[in-house]
Parts: sequence; structure tokens; C-alpha cells
Amino acid sequence: MEALLANISRYITLTPGETERFFSLVEEKKIRKKQLLLQDGDICKHSIFVKQGCLRGYTIDKQGTEHNITFAPAGWWIADLYSLFTGKPGQLFIETTSDSVVQLLSREKQEQLFQEIPKFERFFRILTENALVSNQQRVIDNLSLSAQERYLKFCERYPSLINELPQKHIASFIGVTPEFFSKMLSKS
Amino acid sequence: MEALLANISRYITLTPGETERFFSLVEEKKIRKKQLLLQDGDICKHSIFVKQGCLRGYTIDKQGTEHNITFAPAGWWIADLYSLFTGKPGQLFIETTSDSVVQLLSREKQEQLFQEIPKFERFFRILTENALVSNQQRVIDNLSLSAQERYLKFCERYPSLINELPQKHIASFIGVTPEFFSKMLSKS
Repeated sequence: MEALLANISRYITLTPGETERFFSLVEEKKIRKKQLLLQDGDICKHSIFVKQGCLRGYTIDKQGTEHNITFAPAGWWIADLYSLFTGKPGQLFIETTSDSVVQLLSREKQEQLFQEIPKFERFFRILTENALVSNQQRVIDNLSLSAQERYLKFCERYPSLINELPQKHIASFIGVTPEFFSKMLSKS
Repeated sequence: MEALLANISRYITLTPGETERFFSLVEEKKIRKKQLLLQDGDICKHSIFVKQGCLRGYTIDKQGTEHNITFAPAGWWIADLYSLFTGKPGQLFIETTSDSVVQLLSREKQEQLFQEIPKFERFFRILTENALVSNQQRVIDNLSLSAQERYLKFCERYPSLINELPQKHIASFIGVTPEFFSKMLSKS
């Protein structure tokens, strides 16, 4: 089964006709490594499902430092949800960390989908709940866990990325410098 | 109009019968100041709408320090969304900061509502989107803004709470000590 259909089928059951209609609204794209799909100031118009490869979402602060906010390996969704939901310019950069294949569902097509097949409201409600759970967890972890503990959480969340991603990206995700991260790993 | 109905009517339109059915599933409670509605390890079973008063959501770290994660003045929703959505024990404490009236919708009744009146899927999808937007914003702000800037964000987000909440609660929300916060205010 197509990974995206498997993802949807975790929460709702589609008829063959609904499945076909859904995929007719989705646009598939191949994107090479290190390509930007979105940058700060852009309005995020799509929910992005990662069919192959991996994407990362990050911000850049006033000092020019990148902060990794989220990763999306194969089977995950990614978007600047702030921008997608509000229609305002976002702050997130979204970039491929490896050659990737993504499937895009625009906000407009999503709204069309809700009108035509209302059970997608349920799917995206649950998807949004899951994203919120991990975001809330991230706020709590950043306030209350040590760097070592945040690294363990990263490993649980993204087992496929531990050896795949450059260390600097993992360091940035857990909120430490690459030097600190490297020392931390050598001690553990 | 009842505040909760006004809140819902921002996103979906209910018939009088649907409105009545919805309120029959909601439980209203008066709660005095500084009462805990939820503590860490509890399973959060309700979405809580604040009709009057104010609630705060916080965690306590291993050193015993409280960290305010969110506030819910009148007209806002609050819950340990991680626990509510996953059914697992949560990490959040939820407490009234003033005498309050809350309206509770249990996860079970919510699911019943989705079956009976599917357009509530839409309402809660949008509510979850909004919560996610502010959570994601919080992650980004914590990584990239100064304490002063985070305080300005707090003021935009919760104008009614600036003079209402003890300073220590605001300091904890923006992630600084009460001493630092007090110095920061006197300088600005």
C-alpha cells in the first residue's frame, strides 16, 4: 500500500473512489538534497507528506544561527503550521536533508476535500492532535530535561535519523552547540 | 450569548437542537482559587473551557521548580493535550489562579459528539490547529527571542493577565527567575 494511504488508513477508512479522489488532489515531487521548499517570510500553502528521504524544519535567529525545530523522515508530515493555519508569512525554513520524494496537499485542496469527504476533518483533526502532542512535549522537555535526556528523546522519536543526520543537525535540535554535543556523546 | 457558544460559533454554525445537545454533554463547575484540577501522573479526561476566572498549566521539574506552560483566561480552552489525546498519564498540573467557573467536555462525550454531530470534528480540528500554532510559536520564541521580547509576546497574548497574575507566574512563563523579571521590568 502507498505510504500516504497507509498513514491515512490509521485513522479513517476510505472507499476506492474516495482514495482516488484524494490522490487526484495531491501533487508528487522529487526534490534533491539540501533544497529549500520554504523559507521565512513565505506563506506555507501545503501540508507536505514525506514519501522518501527526509526534511528538516528550522528557524534562523538574529545572530544567523539555525535552530532545528522538527524533522520529517519518510512517513511523516511537515509544514509551517503557523503559516498554513493562519495564512500569514511563516518563520520556518523547510529543507531536504537527503534526496526526497514528497506529496503536497495544498490548503485550498484540503478545504475542498473537507467539503467533499468530511471524514478527512477527522483525519486532519487527529494529525493536528498528534503534532500538538509532540510540540507540547518539546516545550516541556526544553524547560525540564537535560541535554542528555533531550538526546534520548530524539533517539526515541527519530530512530532512523540517529546515524543518518549530520551531528550538527541533532545538536541544533536538542539545543546545544555541535562541540558540546560531541563531548556529550564521547562521555556517554 | 453564552461564551462557550460564541467560541464554537466562530467556526461552525449549530442549530438550536445541536446547541442543546452539545450543552447536555458539558458539565459546569465552580472552582475556588488555587485548586488543582489535574496533576502530573493523572490522565486528563476533559477539555476545559474557562467561563470565568483563569487557569494555569505548569510542570514541576526534578529540582521542584514550577514552569508555567500556558494560561487560560475566560474564553480559552485548556487541557493536558498530550494526556487527553493519548490517554496516557500527563505531566501537566492545571490550577485555578482565581475563583473560576469552568465547563468540562470529556473525551468520551466528545467522541459521542463527533458521531452525532460530525461538524464538531471541524470545530475541534480548528481549535487544535490554533493550539498548535501557539505551541509552535512558543518553541520558536524560546529558542530565538530574548526575555524582554518573550514578555512582549506574553502581553500581546494575554493582555487581561498582565496586571492580574502574580509576577512570579509571568516570570515562569517567559522562562526567567522572578528576580531577573523584576529587574527587567524596572529597566524598561
